[in-house]
Amino acid sequence: MKLVEQKCQVIGKDDAPLASKEIYNLSTEISAWYIGKNFIKREYKFDNFRQAMDFVNKVAVLAEEQDHHPDISIFYNEVELTFSTHKIGGLSLNDFIMAAKVDMLK
Amino acid sequence: MKLVEQKCQVIGKDDAPLASKEIYNLSTEISAWYIGKNFIKREYKFDNFRQAMDFVNKVAVLAEEQDHHPDISIFYNEVELTFSTHKIGGLSLNDFIMAAKVDMLK
Repeated sequence: MKLVEQKCQVIGKDDAPLASKEIYNLSTEISAWYIGKNFIKREYKFDNFRQAMDFVNKVAVLAEEQDHHPDISIFYNEVELTFSTHKIGGLSLNDFIMAAKVDMLK
Repeated sequence: MKLVEQKCQVIGKDDAPLASKEIYNLSTEISAWYIGKNFIKREYKFDNFRQAMDFVNKVAVLAEEQDHHPDISIFYNEVELTFSTHKIGGLSLNDFIMAAKVDMLK
């Protein structure tokens, strides 16, 4: 099933972070994202602050719905999102599911 | 007139940034803010993400109204705001006016 069709699952602190090979395979579905060691990040540009805020509010609704929240930075018309699964100190499938879903909101 | 009662003014690129003494005097009205060289910054904590987003949306309305926008970072229940007047590469009265007004929104 595609990432965008999946739902975030509850992660326990004893769950293992994704392995490099899994990360590599999943990254092909979110090719615009920067894949860091413990996080994934993407910057979105908009015409103005209002559009940036509209996007952030859509991301916020999705984050509450899926109970997985990105760090969000807003620099006037630019929005930077960072996903990480802090509980396991690494990346989980949830980070990739959210990235794919967020890409659909732009 | 108190900072919170003032309105942001249009700043030209040839306007001078505030001098150290002016910054010092103004900072007494926004004592919870960190005063950097070219910016001022404050972190606000909330009970949850929803409350943090409600605050950010109030800040956004004020920023549009006064046409002076902070950089905004949201880390779940924490919101960090940074004001700077990029056009003059320093701090203007507008930064302090906004800081005082934002403090009223919390």
